[in-house]
Amino acid sequence: MFETRFDVEFGDCDPAGIVFYPRFFSWFDAAFQRWLRERGTDQAAIQARFDAVGTGLVDVRANFRAPVRPGDALTVVLVGIEWDERTFALAYEGRRGEQVCVEGTERRGLFARRPDGRLGLVPLSEFRAMIGA
Amino acid sequence: MFETRFDVEFGDCDPAGIVFYPRFFSWFDAAFQRWLRERGTDQAAIQARFDAVGTGLVDVRANFRAPVRPGDALTVVLVGIEWDERTFALAYEGRRGEQVCVEGTERRGLFARRPDGRLGLVPLSEFRAMIGA
Amino acid sequence: MFETRFDVEFGDCDPAGIVFYPRFFSWFDAAFQRWLRERGTDQAAIQARFDAVGTGLVDVRANFRAPVRPGDALTVVLVGIEWDERTFALAYEGRRGEQVCVEGTERRGLFARRPDGRLGLVPLSEFRAMIGA
Amino acid sequence: MFETRFDVEFGDCDPAGIVFYPRFFSWFDAAFQRWLRERGTDQAAIQARFDAVGTGLVDVRANFRAPVRPGDALTVVLVGIEWDERTFALAYEGRRGEQVCVEGTERRGLFARRPDGRLGLVPLSEFRAMIGA
Repeated sequence: MFETRFDVEFGDCDPAGIVFYPRFFSWFDAAFQRWLRERGTDQAAIQARFDAVGTGLVDVRANFRAPVRPGDALTVVLVGIEWDERTFALAYEGRRGEQVCVEGTERRGLFARRPDGRLGLVPLSEFRAMIGA
Repeated sequence: MFETRFDVEFGDCDPAGIVFYPRFFSWFDAAFQRWLRERGTDQAAIQARFDAVGTGLVDVRANFRAPVRPGDALTVVLVGIEWDERTFALAYEGRRGEQVCVEGTERRGLFARRPDGRLGLVPLSEFRAMIGA
Repeated sequence: MFETRFDVEFGDCDPAGIVFYPRFFSWFDAAFQRWLRERGTDQAAIQARFDAVGTGLVDVRANFRAPVRPGDALTVVLVGIEWDERTFALAYEGRRGEQVCVEGTERRGLFARRPDGRLGLVPLSEFRAMIGA
Repeated sequence: MFETRFDVEFGDCDPAGIVFYPRFFSWFDAAFQRWLRERGTDQAAIQARFDAVGTGLVDVRANFRAPVRPGDALTVVLVGIEWDERTFALAYEGRRGEQVCVEGTERRGLFARRPDGRLGLVPLSEFRAMIGA
C-alpha cells in the first residue's frame, strides 16, 4: 500500500548494539505521518479541521523477529488498514531487504471535541473522506 | 510487586501536547531495568554471565487509556510476570495518582550463545536463579 | 541554586555503552522545566500569558568530562543564570556523586508575538517578574 | 564536503510544535556516522581496530536560527573539519532549502586504551589514515 524508508542510526541503538525497541514505534508513527502527508494532510491540518488533538493511539503491538543494527536500512511497509466506526488499525512490517525484522499494529482514533464539549473518539467518516481512504 | 516513578518531561511530549507514545515503552523498559537492579543484576552482568546479548524483546503491546502531559508523575507498576521455559511476560500499569493511563506487556527472552554457536533464546532456569524469581 | 536528579537508563545509552550525548541536553531542558515549575509556572502558562511559542533556545553548548553509564544517578545543578534584555543563559553541571561529568549552557529567549504580529524575542522584564527571578 | 538528509518527524517535535532541540544533535551525530560509513568504516570497526570505545565527544555547541517543523526536510552539511593531534572539530549546517536553520560543532576524539591500560584520547594519525582524511 505504502512504504517508506528509515536509516537506522547509531543513536537509535542501545548498549546491546541493536535498535532500542521503542524506536520501532517511532518509525511506525513516522510512517503513518508520511502516509498522511502523501494523502495531502498532516496533524496540524487535522487539528484545525476537527478541533481535534489528532489521530491518537488506542492500542499498539509489535513482534520482533530479527535484530536491526546501526547502518541498516529499514523499510516500513503499511500492509493494511482496518476501519471501524471510531477506530482504525494500521498494520506494518519493518523489512531489511527481504527479511521482516518487526511487524506491528497501531490502532488509532480521531480524538476531537464532541458536541458535549468533551474530548473523545469521533466517527471517522469525515476523516476518511478528507484523506480519500 | 514493584513500582517506580518517572517524571514526564516537556521533551517527552509531541505537538499534540501529550506523551509521544513510544516513550511509554521506554519507561516500561526502564522499569524492567530498575527491577533487575533491585534484584542485584543489570544488562552488563547478564551479558557477562551468559555470553548473551541480554534480555531482549519478543513482543510487546500497550493500551492507552488517558493522555499524560508534561509535569505529570507516572508511576509504573510491574503487576505480574509469567514465566515460560524460554520467554517471560512482564505486565505493567502506568498510573497517574489512582488513574491507570496506560497498561502494557513486554515478552522477553534471554538471547545468548547456544552450544551450536548461534544466538537464540535459551532456557531461563539459570537466569531465574540468578535474580531469585 | 537548583538541583534535580535523573536516573540514567539503559535506553539513554548507545552501543558504546555510555549516554548518547544528545540526552544530556534533554536533561538540561528537563532541569529548566522543573525549575520553572518550582517557580510556579510552565510552558503552557507561558504560552497563554505571552501569546508565545515559549522559552526557546538561541544557542547551547556542553563539555563532556567523564562517561555516564546505565544505572548512574545524574544530578543536574543549575549553577547560575545571566540575564540580558532579551536572552538569558542558564549554566548547568551534571554530577555523579562529587564528579562533574558534563557542564553546559543554554541561552534562551521568550519567543512571542510582537506588536508587528511577527514572532521574535521580546523583552524579559515581565517574564522575570512572573517567575520572581 | 558531505551532506545528508533527514526527514523531520512529528515525534521529533515538542508541544511548542517545533523540533525538540536535542534532536539536532542526534542528526549531527547521525551525519557524522553516515560520513564515516561513506569513508568505509563505522563505530564497530573503529572499536575493533583501536580497542576503543569509539569516536566520543569532547564538547559540542549549536546555534539555532529558525524553527524547524514536522514534515520539513533538513539537510545536514558537514562544512569543515579541523584536525588537532588528539581531537577533531566537525562543523555542521542544518539547512531547509536555502535557509540555514541551525549550525553547530562537535569536537571528538578517539577514546582508546593507551599503553598504560587506561582509556583516553589517543593520537589521530592512524585513524586519519584509516578514513583517508
